[in-house]
Amino acid sequence: MRIFISGPSGVGKSTIISEVLKRNPDIVLSVSYTTRKPRPEEMHGREYYFISPQEFEEMVSKGVFLEWAQVHDHTYGTSLDWVSRYEKEGKHILFDIDVQGVRQARERGFTGSYVFIIPPSIDELAKRLKHRGTENEKSFSLRLKNAREELRCWKMYDYIVVNGVIGQAVKDVQSIIDATRCSRTEMAGRIPWLQEIG
Amino acid sequence: MRIFISGPSGVGKSTIISEVLKRNPDIVLSVSYTTRKPRPEEMHGREYYFISPQEFEEMVSKGVFLEWAQVHDHTYGTSLDWVSRYEKEGKHILFDIDVQGVRQARERGFTGSYVFIIPPSIDELAKRLKHRGTENEKSFSLRLKNAREELRCWKMYDYIVVNGVIGQAVKDVQSIIDATRCSRTEMAGRIPWLQEIG
Repeated sequence: MRIFISGPSGVGKSTIISEVLKRNPDIVLSVSYTTRKPRPEEMHGREYYFISPQEFEEMVSKGVFLEWAQVHDHTYGTSLDWVSRYEKEGKHILFDIDVQGVRQARERGFTGSYVFIIPPSIDELAKRLKHRGTENEKSFSLRLKNAREELRCWKMYDYIVVNGVIGQAVKDVQSIIDATRCSRTEMAGRIPWLQEIG
Repeated sequence: MRIFISGPSGVGKSTIISEVLKRNPDIVLSVSYTTRKPRPEEMHGREYYFISPQEFEEMVSKGVFLEWAQVHDHTYGTSLDWVSRYEKEGKHILFDIDVQGVRQARERGFTGSYVFIIPPSIDELAKRLKHRGTENEKSFSLRLKNAREELRCWKMYDYIVVNGVIGQAVKDVQSIIDATRCSRTEMAGRIPWLQEIG
């Protein structure tokens, strides 16, 4: 099972993802490759695989990425090999992915449940972005503009979850995961006699 | 929102449906038309609209049925008018529908979540059918044969729910309903600013 989760900056996606991972020990979070430098608390292979721009370019040219994207000054990509490796072990995968990545995954016909987290309103998102202490006025406007652009891509997704009250958003994502477990494709893999009968 | 639920005879579909309706007061059960005679406890317009074979034929020829099917000696049909009337009131509809009905609804491109309830195994279904006191040996074999035929249609459905432990099956259907509430189509109707932005 594959669950793709996107949402504009400030929407609270990371909190939702970490809550969902706690509740579903059979789901692993996809680990991407990136050219950005690790932060002190980050570990190679846990948050990301930290590689050089040269290595990244080489991987792009070899076509090993399911999707990759430039975000601010750095590139991020999801390796198809990584996905196959975990799926062979029977693991379910949750992808924390941006709209550019979803577009590419969709274009490749990569199946799964695509979930878009949205704020209750644009005003509310603006408020949340403003309250992030580190933002100066310029990066605030830029982030809000980007968020608007991203929100315009809602039609690429199967599901839309409003993050108003955090508990409800987590519940909604959990329902989507539980429903996806019951999807025909998932069940066909789990119930051998269905294949035999039909 | 439309939820279609099918399952072979003996699988426990009615129990699941009545549990689900109790938990979701905003969902109404579709009331079909039938040519079979009402049982003592049944009421016209509640369990079914009881009509004559002549009236039924007339409705078929006028094309008012979303789907209709012959089951044993009687015909049953879902009226498109009935569906539109409730949907205009903003109601969600649950359809208790057989595989023939689902085939027709799919052919018409009728959108919704299609759920198939299956037993844990064919043997288990046979056991359940056998334990129904009223069945004689002949109707038992016929019902088992029909159930097998119906189970072969699992690929027409979006979701498959195993009714092993009843509580779990109800939970699964509930997750499918909650996920469907978050589906792009449903959310697009509920969140005006999404339409405006994209």
